[in-house]
Amino acid sequence: MLKNDNFLKACRREPVDCTPVWIMRQAGRYMKEYRDIRKKVDFLTMCKTPDLAAEVTLLPVDILGVDAAILFSDILIPVEAMGIGVRFTEKKGPILSNPVRSEFELNALLTPDSVKSEEMMPFIPQAIRLILQELDGRVPLIGFSGAPFTLATYMIEGETSRNFTWIKRIMYTDAALLHRLLEKITTTVIHYLNMQIKAGVHAVQLFDTWAGWLSPDDYREFALPYVEKVIKGIDKKGCPVILFANGVSGILEQMVDSGADVIGLDWRIDMVDAVRRSGNRVALQGNLDPCVLYGEPSVIRRHAKDIIDKYGKRSGHVFNLGHGILPDIPVEHAKALVDIVHEESSRQS
Amino acid sequence: MLKNDNFLKACRREPVDCTPVWIMRQAGRYMKEYRDIRKKVDFLTMCKTPDLAAEVTLLPVDILGVDAAILFSDILIPVEAMGIGVRFTEKKGPILSNPVRSEFELNALLTPDSVKSEEMMPFIPQAIRLILQELDGRVPLIGFSGAPFTLATYMIEGETSRNFTWIKRIMYTDAALLHRLLEKITTTVIHYLNMQIKAGVHAVQLFDTWAGWLSPDDYREFALPYVEKVIKGIDKKGCPVILFANGVSGILEQMVDSGADVIGLDWRIDMVDAVRRSGNRVALQGNLDPCVLYGEPSVIRRHAKDIIDKYGKRSGHVFNLGHGILPDIPVEHAKALVDIVHEESSRQS
Repeated sequence: MLKNDNFLKACRREPVDCTPVWIMRQAGRYMKEYRDIRKKVDFLTMCKTPDLAAEVTLLPVDILGVDAAILFSDILIPVEAMGIGVRFTEKKGPILSNPVRSEFELNALLTPDSVKSEEMMPFIPQAIRLILQELDGRVPLIGFSGAPFTLATYMIEGETSRNFTWIKRIMYTDAALLHRLLEKITTTVIHYLNMQIKAGVHAVQLFDTWAGWLSPDDYREFALPYVEKVIKGIDKKGCPVILFANGVSGILEQMVDSGADVIGLDWRIDMVDAVRRSGNRVALQGNLDPCVLYGEPSVIRRHAKDIIDKYGKRSGHVFNLGHGILPDIPVEHAKALVDIVHEESSRQS
Repeated sequence: MLKNDNFLKACRREPVDCTPVWIMRQAGRYMKEYRDIRKKVDFLTMCKTPDLAAEVTLLPVDILGVDAAILFSDILIPVEAMGIGVRFTEKKGPILSNPVRSEFELNALLTPDSVKSEEMMPFIPQAIRLILQELDGRVPLIGFSGAPFTLATYMIEGETSRNFTWIKRIMYTDAALLHRLLEKITTTVIHYLNMQIKAGVHAVQLFDTWAGWLSPDDYREFALPYVEKVIKGIDKKGCPVILFANGVSGILEQMVDSGADVIGLDWRIDMVDAVRRSGNRVALQGNLDPCVLYGEPSVIRRHAKDIIDKYGKRSGHVFNLGHGILPDIPVEHAKALVDIVHEESSRQS
C-alpha cells in the first residue's frame, strides 16, 4: 500500500535501496509555510485543529521529500489530558499551571483510558486520519509520545528546566512519589499511543529527551522500566517503536535492552561506537549535529556522508538529526540534506 | 611540606589512606559565609580583591574539611584580559560586551604574555600567595583556567548558551576563523596558567565544560588539539593537570589521550565504564550527580559509596561531584559528603 516504505524497512533492519531520512521537528518554524500559519493561530490551537495539524504535517513531505511524516503535535498534549494546564510562551516555551510536587497534586491527576483519551483528545485520531488520507500512501506516518520520565520532568519542573532540580530533588528525597507519578504517566502513554496506532500510524517514537541527564543507575531505576512497560503495553500491530534520548552515550546498552526496534541517537556519540555497542540488535536513527545545517551543502555532504559511511552497508539505518532542527536553519539546507542522504547512500549500496 | 597531600597523591595514582574529595564550586552561594560577603560586593570585585578571594577560597577547607582548595575566580578573567568586556547578571550569568564573530573582532583581541598577564591580572598571583600563606600547608591549592574551546563558546556566544548556535555556525561556515580564535586563546591560557603555577598552585584544572556538546569528530578537531597544546605548553613544575568536561561519555578516550593526569567526569557515565575505558592511564575525578546532595545523608552515603566501590581498590580516585554544587544545597549535606567519602573509602582500604 505504501509507495515508499524505506523508513519502515530500515526500522525492521530490512535492505533498502537508499537510506531513509526524516528530521525531528521537520514541520517547524524554519519553514515559511509553517510561520505563515502560525501567525494566525497559537501553537496549541495548531496542535488541536486537525486541518491545520494535517496541513503542517504534510509540509516536509511536499517540500523536503522526507521518507516519513510525523504527526504534528506536542509531547504535552497527554499531560493536559491528565489535568495539568499547559500554555506556551514565546520566550520560555511551555509553562504548566500546577506542577506535581506532592501527594496532593499526584492524587488529583487523571489517567485517561482509551475511551477518555478519545473523548479528551479527539483531534489526535482525527488529524491522523486526515493526514493518512492526504498522504495517500506516499510515505509512512509516525505517531509519538513523550516517554514517562521526560513527561515527568515537565510535570514536576513546570517548565523547560536547565538542571532538573525539582524532579531530582524528589528523586533523592521521595523516590516512591516519583515512581507513583511515573506509573500514572505510563498508563496514560499506553492508551495515548494505542489511540494513535488504532487511528493508523505506521510507527511510533518515544521521546525520552531528558533521560540522558540521568546517571546510568538512575536511568535504570527511573526511566528504563517505564519505557519497557510502555513498549510491552501497547498494542503495536506491527508498528516499529523508536526510542530517542538526547545524551544516549552513557545509557545506550540499556536503551537497546528496552525492547525498542530503533534507538534514536543524539550527535554526541560516534556512529561507529553506537553500531558496535548496539550489537546489531536494533536499528539506529540519527545522528547529525543539528547545527551542521548552518553549513553550506558541501559541509552538510561531508558530515552526512561520514555518518552513512560509519553505519556501513548493514541494514537498519534511519538518517536523522541528533536533535530537533533549529528555527533559523535555511530550508534549502534541510532540503539539501534529504537529497544528499539519498544520493550518498545509493552510491554506497 | 603539605600536611594532607592525599589529593596530589591520588592525582599521581599513588596509594592514599582515604579517597580525597573536593567539590566543584565549593566556595559558593550555598554557604552563608559566602552570601554574606557577596551581599557587600559584586562577583567580579570578589574575584579581583585578593583578600576576599582568599577568604572565600578558605571557607570550604575550614567548614567542610575538603582535601584541596581551589582558587576563587572565574573562567572569564583571562577573557577580559584579552580585551572583551565581561559583566555578571543575577539572571543570565555572564554577558560579554563584544562577542567575537568576525575577523574584525578576532584581530582586535590581545594575547597577554607572561609580563602582560601579571600586569593585567595582578590579583591572581596575589590571591594565590595569600591563600597559600593562610592554608599553611593544610591542603594543596588548585589553580584553573577554562579550556580553549569552552572559553571560545563564551567569547562567540556572548553569554551562557543553550544550543551554542553561534559558535557552531562559525564552526560549519568558517572553521579557519574559529581555529585562529582557539590559537589566540590557547596562547593566553598557557601564560595564564604559568602565572598561577609560578605563584605556587599545586595542581591545575582545565574546565572544558562545554566540549561535551560536540560530536566526537568535532571534539577531535576543535577542542582536543588546543587542550593538548596547553598541557604541553605550560611549565608544569610537577603540577598534575586535571581535564574536566561535562558530557565526557562520547569523548573519554580522546580526553585520556590529551596528556592530562586526571580526567574529571560528569555524572552521566558509569564509573565502572570510565575505569575500564580509561585503562589505568590516568586518575579519575568525580562523579556524583550534584542533585544527590538534595538527599538526606543516608541517600548521599548510598550513592557516594557506590562510586567508591565501583572505582575499587586501585589508586587514583579523586572524589568530586560531576558538575558544580548547586546554590540551594544545604551546607550540612556538603559536609556530610566529605565525611562519608573519607569514612567509606577508609573502610574499603
